[in-house]
Amino acid sequence: MKELSKENLTAVIKTRLQNSHKGTFGRSVLIGGNDSYGGAIIMSAEACVKAGCGLTSVSTAEKNHTALHARLPEAMVLDWTLTQEFNDLIDTADVILIGPGLGLDTHSQHILDNVLQQQKSSQWLVIDGSAITLFAQNHYSLNYPKQVVFTPHQMEWERLSGLKIIDQTVENNQLWQMKLGATIVLKSHRTEIYTANAKYKNPLGSPAMATGGMGDTLAGMIASFLAQFKEKEAAVCAAVYLHSFIGEELGKENYVVLPTEISKNLPYYMKRFEQLHNKTEEKR
Amino acid sequence: MKELSKENLTAVIKTRLQNSHKGTFGRSVLIGGNDSYGGAIIMSAEACVKAGCGLTSVSTAEKNHTALHARLPEAMVLDWTLTQEFNDLIDTADVILIGPGLGLDTHSQHILDNVLQQQKSSQWLVIDGSAITLFAQNHYSLNYPKQVVFTPHQMEWERLSGLKIIDQTVENNQLWQMKLGATIVLKSHRTEIYTANAKYKNPLGSPAMATGGMGDTLAGMIASFLAQFKEKEAAVCAAVYLHSFIGEELGKENYVVLPTEISKNLPYYMKRFEQLHNKTEEKR
Amino acid sequence: MKELSKENLTAVIKTRLQNSHKGTFGRSVLIGGNDSYGGAIIMSAEACVKAGCGLTSVSTAEKNHTALHARLPEAMVLDWTLTQEFNDLIDTADVILIGPGLGLDTHSQHILDNVLQQQKSSQWLVIDGSAITLFAQNHYSLNYPKQVVFTPHQMEWERLSGLKIIDQTVENNQLWQMKLGATIVLKSHRTEIYTANAKYKNPLGSPAMATGGMGDTLAGMIASFLAQFKEKEAAVCAAVYLHSFIGEELGKENYVVLPTEISKNLPYYMKRFEQLHNKTEEKR
Amino acid sequence: MKELSKENLTAVIKTRLQNSHKGTFGRSVLIGGNDSYGGAIIMSAEACVKAGCGLTSVSTAEKNHTALHARLPEAMVLDWTLTQEFNDLIDTADVILIGPGLGLDTHSQHILDNVLQQQKSSQWLVIDGSAITLFAQNHYSLNYPKQVVFTPHQMEWERLSGLKIIDQTVENNQLWQMKLGATIVLKSHRTEIYTANAKYKNPLGSPAMATGGMGDTLAGMIASFLAQFKEKEAAVCAAVYLHSFIGEELGKENYVVLPTEISKNLPYYMKRFEQLHNKTEEKR
Repeated sequence: MKELSKENLTAVIKTRLQNSHKGTFGRSVLIGGNDSYGGAIIMSAEACVKAGCGLTSVSTAEKNHTALHARLPEAMVLDWTLTQEFNDLIDTADVILIGPGLGLDTHSQHILDNVLQQQKSSQWLVIDGSAITLFAQNHYSLNYPKQVVFTPHQMEWERLSGLKIIDQTVENNQLWQMKLGATIVLKSHRTEIYTANAKYKNPLGSPAMATGGMGDTLAGMIASFLAQFKEKEAAVCAAVYLHSFIGEELGKENYVVLPTEISKNLPYYMKRFEQLHNKTEEKR
Repeated sequence: MKELSKENLTAVIKTRLQNSHKGTFGRSVLIGGNDSYGGAIIMSAEACVKAGCGLTSVSTAEKNHTALHARLPEAMVLDWTLTQEFNDLIDTADVILIGPGLGLDTHSQHILDNVLQQQKSSQWLVIDGSAITLFAQNHYSLNYPKQVVFTPHQMEWERLSGLKIIDQTVENNQLWQMKLGATIVLKSHRTEIYTANAKYKNPLGSPAMATGGMGDTLAGMIASFLAQFKEKEAAVCAAVYLHSFIGEELGKENYVVLPTEISKNLPYYMKRFEQLHNKTEEKR
Repeated sequence: MKELSKENLTAVIKTRLQNSHKGTFGRSVLIGGNDSYGGAIIMSAEACVKAGCGLTSVSTAEKNHTALHARLPEAMVLDWTLTQEFNDLIDTADVILIGPGLGLDTHSQHILDNVLQQQKSSQWLVIDGSAITLFAQNHYSLNYPKQVVFTPHQMEWERLSGLKIIDQTVENNQLWQMKLGATIVLKSHRTEIYTANAKYKNPLGSPAMATGGMGDTLAGMIASFLAQFKEKEAAVCAAVYLHSFIGEELGKENYVVLPTEISKNLPYYMKRFEQLHNKTEEKR
Repeated sequence: MKELSKENLTAVIKTRLQNSHKGTFGRSVLIGGNDSYGGAIIMSAEACVKAGCGLTSVSTAEKNHTALHARLPEAMVLDWTLTQEFNDLIDTADVILIGPGLGLDTHSQHILDNVLQQQKSSQWLVIDGSAITLFAQNHYSLNYPKQVVFTPHQMEWERLSGLKIIDQTVENNQLWQMKLGATIVLKSHRTEIYTANAKYKNPLGSPAMATGGMGDTLAGMIASFLAQFKEKEAAVCAAVYLHSFIGEELGKENYVVLPTEISKNLPYYMKRFEQLHNKTEEKR
């Protein structure tokens, strides 16, 4: 397995071209947040906006709209009933993230069905949280080439692959990556990434980050990086590494690192790696 | 074209007279924010208040009132149904901003009609975002002298003027400025301003600012400066330059600059330019 | 007229006794905030809590409860319909503030009637903003000794006293103070205070503070100081001076000072004056 | 009585194991916040999350959900009607906190009944605020071994034990601790803790902390520490001491310390004590 390092960040986070506009950095649509788990999709949205996605829209239960706007007016909102407007919104996306706080009821199921059917070949789809469980329960398959990233923790990976935690070896995981035909971000205190081409291991991650919402934040970052950067495999690796890197940095001064603190610090740390990239280039 | 510079700020942002009260710095009424785009008008309001407008009122869909108050209790709110209260509010304004998150439906159209009919010769009107698109769709004309500022990005300017982006040359833009009889703030990574008297080019602007909501923030700043400063053309130029100046400054430490961060830093940077103005005066 | 100075602060803001509890620092009930002006009562509440009042309750239109809690969970809320609960709440207060964002309609009038009738001789009542206008319109009189503070700006003082702004001389104001039998905080860029015993002039105040909500913040501070400090006249003077003092300090680095920034800085500046008081005592 | 000291913190707040996940640090369910006192349960939740509990859920009146999410998306919410979902949530908890802002009406009573009946022997239950008053009014008894912590102030302790404040001597308090069979955190400016094994006195506490919401914050910290740390008596002692320690530290620069400021500083101060622990270990 390749070990992720700072080079995974400097390879991706480059100086933006002067002649850019918000469209240059992609459109993400984030779907999740039922009546109890609205905070999850809010945390994903904060990560997505602050990691640099050009335009972020959130489709969530109406109950969550005010809290989202109160924290993050930069995001647009849409109720998550399956209207024409919902379908139109999905259609505009470069990246769709589904799952944070989505829940497991029938409505959530319908939304996932709908998104899986609608996904266009140009779009990336990140499937997180309860959407992974729903995907597993319904024995979906991605039976044609799709640009999909799953972000399971070990229990969700068991549901998706059938592999018990003890059987989640690198070889077995890689086998299931091939069967699914998707990128797998297998979250643990040392997250692993499985793609069609390679396997990566994240050497970072602090126990200060072991608190609810960290996964929602990571999912938002992955969506944002996919929307914004061209090399998609590299973008996923960079998001995973940066999430842990910031967590470790903040964990030096804090016993607990809140997910929203990771997001708050994204613009600063991304700049540091842009500058590091430029310094490295200069030396060459 | 004249290139904007720090002198455009020091010429406008002067030390306030001791004997001032909130009325001295004008009343702005901001109209926008439908059920999906409430964040837009919230961002405009934050910019307007923090740039120093004396009194800021927001007319928006009721859904957005709580989020606005949670972020900015300094602003007053009114539902945007076309009641007598709405008309009374419009009547008190020194500056009206319409458009951020307004949307394109029939209700939005009615509000724009209403505002265009009601505008008094003493009032300034800033037309932004979807209000520009509605204005273009309805083939409105400003067939008598009106104090209007349009703030289109290049696509909106195409809709308004009919000029395709490739044809948006300085000469053509100036021609259309005359036809419309309004001030044009043509937004791009190097924003241009066209007035009856002059043409300006903004040399600043960072790609870190290429994120949703930047335009809403600029529109709020323009409204605030028009409400507060006497020389209106100079006020528009100062708002445009300051917006980019802060964006560039924050962009030195941040890969992405959120629109709300620009607003948060307005009081500090405006003070710096007031002080710079005073130092320049002393030397004379 | 006596000129307010730092001594008005060191005389009031003393080191709290170790054996204190929240009841030691008084209960304030703040009433205001209709459907359009909810921000006003939120700003008063922030000032009241952060200036040290032990317990702060807010009675406001239900529409404003969520925004208040989102900013300030330290305050309790109650709908402002005239229920038994409302009367019970009023009954517990050491200080009642009525007026910020109250509005001028019939319901607002009923609430003011109710409060004026219910006020007990042990309670202080601060009448601010639209409650002053309502008081004037209804030709109320305080025909028995009441502990009342009015906080009019010059236009409201004209309504209350009948004195046109040009006639608002020290002598005339003092005369009307006696007729009303209340403390008058006459707000302008150099606020004056009239009591039965004395006249004070505030030498401070920055034009950076000339923005909507400053008066709501001052009213909240006055309520908090009355609830917390024993010498009531001294408490009012201290609140007025501190409000401007903080405004001037923040105005050195900011072109505009938001009302909520004044409140945010209250705990820090109050500590500074407590420390100054103790140093002065040591020297004696 | 043993006097609490920094050693009570270094004994508890140790370096987290690398191989941790959010489940490692426990699940808390917080119940409270009626239509008027929503702020109380919000403050408890902030303390619980920021003190390091792995997963925090809040069951409160629906009215409070948006404000909670706007401040703290890390928490999950559930309406507090007595549904199957409510019972399922309770069932998952390691620690249940009931009381902050709960109120005293029939519904609040039903919830308390329900929680007392449902509590499993593996779960800890913290009874605070109005839940203490309800417990006293209903002459409940804990007639079998339960893991309960009561957090009364002196008036609530009078209601619970029948001991008038003047009779709340160490001996009498200890006697009542035994009768109740629960841990008692008796709050005052020098809080005392009574357990089956020992008596503790807190030497810290600043009058700057004498403001509404401090108790709600302490209750949230106690729940968080019980969820997260193994030694339960030590966890309660650590929470009490840390709450006052942070209050005293912030009180050096602030005349008033808001409860939410205590919570905001938890991650930083907990890290300091982790580091202090490690230094002490090294010396051995």
